[in-house]
Amino acid sequence: VWVSYALLEQHFAKIGRLQEIEAIVEWDQAVNMPASAGPSRAEAMATLSVVWHELLADPRVGDWLQAAAQQSELDVWQRANVREMRRLFTRARAVPLPLVEALTVATKNSEHAWRQLRQNNDFAGYAPYLEDVVARTRESAAALAEALNLSPYDALLDAFEPDARANEIDASFASLRSFLPGFLQHVLAKQGSLEVREPLGPFSTAEQRELGLQLMVAVGFDARRGRLDTSHHAFCGGVPRDVRITTRYDEADFSSSLMGVLHEAGHGKYEQGLPEAWRHQPVGNPRGMVLHESQSLLQEMQICRGKEFLSFAAPKIRAAFPRSVAEQPEAFTLDNLSRWYTRVRRSLIRVEADEVTYSAHVLLRYDIERRLIDGTLRVRDLPEVWDQGMRELLGLTTLGDDRDGCMQDVHWPAGLFGYFPLYTLGAMVAAQLFATFQASHPEFATELSRGEFGTLNAWLLQHVWSRASSQSTRDILIGASGEPLNPAFYQAHLRTRYLA
Amino acid sequence: VWVSYALLEQHFAKIGRLQEIEAIVEWDQAVNMPASAGPSRAEAMATLSVVWHELLADPRVGDWLQAAAQQSELDVWQRANVREMRRLFTRARAVPLPLVEALTVATKNSEHAWRQLRQNNDFAGYAPYLEDVVARTRESAAALAEALNLSPYDALLDAFEPDARANEIDASFASLRSFLPGFLQHVLAKQGSLEVREPLGPFSTAEQRELGLQLMVAVGFDARRGRLDTSHHAFCGGVPRDVRITTRYDEADFSSSLMGVLHEAGHGKYEQGLPEAWRHQPVGNPRGMVLHESQSLLQEMQICRGKEFLSFAAPKIRAAFPRSVAEQPEAFTLDNLSRWYTRVRRSLIRVEADEVTYSAHVLLRYDIERRLIDGTLRVRDLPEVWDQGMRELLGLTTLGDDRDGCMQDVHWPAGLFGYFPLYTLGAMVAAQLFATFQASHPEFATELSRGEFGTLNAWLLQHVWSRASSQSTRDILIGASGEPLNPAFYQAHLRTRYLA
Repeated sequence: VWVSYALLEQHFAKIGRLQEIEAIVEWDQAVNMPASAGPSRAEAMATLSVVWHELLADPRVGDWLQAAAQQSELDVWQRANVREMRRLFTRARAVPLPLVEALTVATKNSEHAWRQLRQNNDFAGYAPYLEDVVARTRESAAALAEALNLSPYDALLDAFEPDARANEIDASFASLRSFLPGFLQHVLAKQGSLEVREPLGPFSTAEQRELGLQLMVAVGFDARRGRLDTSHHAFCGGVPRDVRITTRYDEADFSSSLMGVLHEAGHGKYEQGLPEAWRHQPVGNPRGMVLHESQSLLQEMQICRGKEFLSFAAPKIRAAFPRSVAEQPEAFTLDNLSRWYTRVRRSLIRVEADEVTYSAHVLLRYDIERRLIDGTLRVRDLPEVWDQGMRELLGLTTLGDDRDGCMQDVHWPAGLFGYFPLYTLGAMVAAQLFATFQASHPEFATELSRGEFGTLNAWLLQHVWSRASSQSTRDILIGASGEPLNPAFYQAHLRTRYLA
Repeated sequence: VWVSYALLEQHFAKIGRLQEIEAIVEWDQAVNMPASAGPSRAEAMATLSVVWHELLADPRVGDWLQAAAQQSELDVWQRANVREMRRLFTRARAVPLPLVEALTVATKNSEHAWRQLRQNNDFAGYAPYLEDVVARTRESAAALAEALNLSPYDALLDAFEPDARANEIDASFASLRSFLPGFLQHVLAKQGSLEVREPLGPFSTAEQRELGLQLMVAVGFDARRGRLDTSHHAFCGGVPRDVRITTRYDEADFSSSLMGVLHEAGHGKYEQGLPEAWRHQPVGNPRGMVLHESQSLLQEMQICRGKEFLSFAAPKIRAAFPRSVAEQPEAFTLDNLSRWYTRVRRSLIRVEADEVTYSAHVLLRYDIERRLIDGTLRVRDLPEVWDQGMRELLGLTTLGDDRDGCMQDVHWPAGLFGYFPLYTLGAMVAAQLFATFQASHPEFATELSRGEFGTLNAWLLQHVWSRASSQSTRDILIGASGEPLNPAFYQAHLRTRYLA
């Protein structure tokens, strides 16, 4: 039986190493690859992916798992490792190969069509592609649901966040849904009387990069085990020993890149804090997207947009852009920067949204995608439903503007259903973790204004990063904060920051 | 039978795609990876390599090859493809797995030890590592020799240059060996009376990079299908649609990087000129290291160090470094740059050697490595034999200086035997190709002084690049120049450039 467990570790290490290669090449694709190499690279990546999928679905894995399950000598991490292996194995075998291929083809065609048709605001032209993706996703979700004994939507959630259940998400989102519209009104009314001076550029890419690197290292990202590069969409990729953060620079506005780098640094610190001893094993992976997003949002939203951090960062920001400061000193005061970094505005685009309205975008997408998956909403009705939701949640219309309406995100065109709600769950967990930490570390506000992150990072390492996938998200959260997810923390944070 | 051939193409395309991934990750390792990620990356790369080796040695390949061999409908490229597949399959199965692993371990330990012990000039400490590598290489060569029906050394050559045979190399090198010492004396005597002004820096990395990019594109490297980056050792990596050239910048001397970029651009143009239709198939690969090196040396040595090219490049060089030119205009004249780029000096280090003395370094290594492989020379006697050879060929001694003597190159520590002679064969082929081209294109000298490479690149595309591995190196050379390798071209080139 020990032999079975050892064989499992060996087998999954092989898969993990191939996934390490995949992570580096994916980063390369976004950062370095000339566009003309795209089709060839896509073929190569598909081949590599098939190789490790075949290893994952190897029937011998099932035999080894069965033998290892009867093994009482395994320690708690080894048992958790077996549990994770079983989850991955079950998922890998649940969907018949022809269906996997049909979904791959559908999403590939759809994403390709979307890039062009979104530009043209052509929803009618795009709808058949998305219909195909939804149909294949529903078939795939049904197969997964049967194998996992879950509802189809929960089976999709499980790919990104194990143990996430729609009925629990509904409960967490219900109070937010009633809270948000009224809260937003209050915030907008309050901010209406505040003047914000936008710092004016140009801010050179080199200066922005230098500032980003400096603050990224200051918050605790280990630059000897990672890099900062440029890509069209910001992300945190690579592997724990070699974390690859990317950002995009806008010479007219340094804030998007700076907060972006700090957001990705939050992801990166989680990766760097995963236990080295379990590298390449499933139990050594980050727990799921909720905790991952909680780490980036704790960094960016809870900390870096707050006044204590800005009192540390403002002198460095001023030093980075001496010409702009000389021309416009009032835009670089702590008070103005703080107002600028917490400015709330209704807007159409999720990825440009502020902390308050972001959740409204998520609530809309969560509702819609559940109905697409359970079959009660047809793709063709998306523009109307989208417009209606935007009017209710944010008071904006998208009629006739599908480009900035239901066609704005790549998620659905790429077949990512069950992902959107995790952003807001991450924001809630971030608020809960940070509130708990602050309650037991009253000295941290002072530390933060001096740019000292040691206490916080040690606490996160102990309670989140080093746990990897050895426990559920729920148990990690209870271990850290004493209770399961409690949306009150998030609302309290919003009230304190925006209405106090 | 057609089915067998189709299966072979499919199977080798899978291998080719995984090798494409490997090429990108190898480039990443040299260009981007933080050092601390090295051990983890090495494991991941080894896993990927095992995956494609297993595919290559799959016994089914043997069955398909046998069936495809009886197929008369295959066209000439398909037959060549089968021939290349057989060669790769035979090599992959020739060496028993335990021996492959023993050699891998030996070279890994040896390369690691070499990095430190070379610094310390500690040959005695290093010798046992190299002895192990030589012993395992001899065993491996014996196994390959039996499977390929070749001598052991020829079996090693065949890995880098199919069909290369030591007895033919001996014939090509014999006249060079008698020509070189006397020729070198004449050149040194002639150059002794010429004054060369070394351009003085600093030359900023950014300015050097800009100049390198400009001339790299001017000679015909397609920058939309490739990149130029920085790494510790210059190389040309990546894949035909995405060729990754690297260089290293020395702010005190722009010439090493500039000529390095142009050298690698020669390799890169070959890769970019390979036939798209045979991508990922063995017949679509570059023919071997001799032709590959011939393309880089044709670019760098035949063309870019010649006066016609320099008359085109000199104004661009002057424009790149205005401060240095203002301080030292006489160093940037065409005549001085030309003298500087063709200066010949006796020196200990191969990679820093000029065009004339480089071959002497190769002759020395070729002699020694053949004797190491046939067992007539013991590793412990290397320092003495090296010193003796250096005194004969270049009039220099390395007694007591093994660091810059027999320990200077990574090749043997890394288990690369059968590689060194290919550099000089490449130089000979470069001279033969360029002389043939010039004879039929008398207008090219004028084109070259205007920086026009279209005629040359079209000729190389037709006669070399587009042939890929469809013919032998010998047949490609006959097709291009009308005769097999003729070392007289190389000696004629040297005489014209250095004594005329």
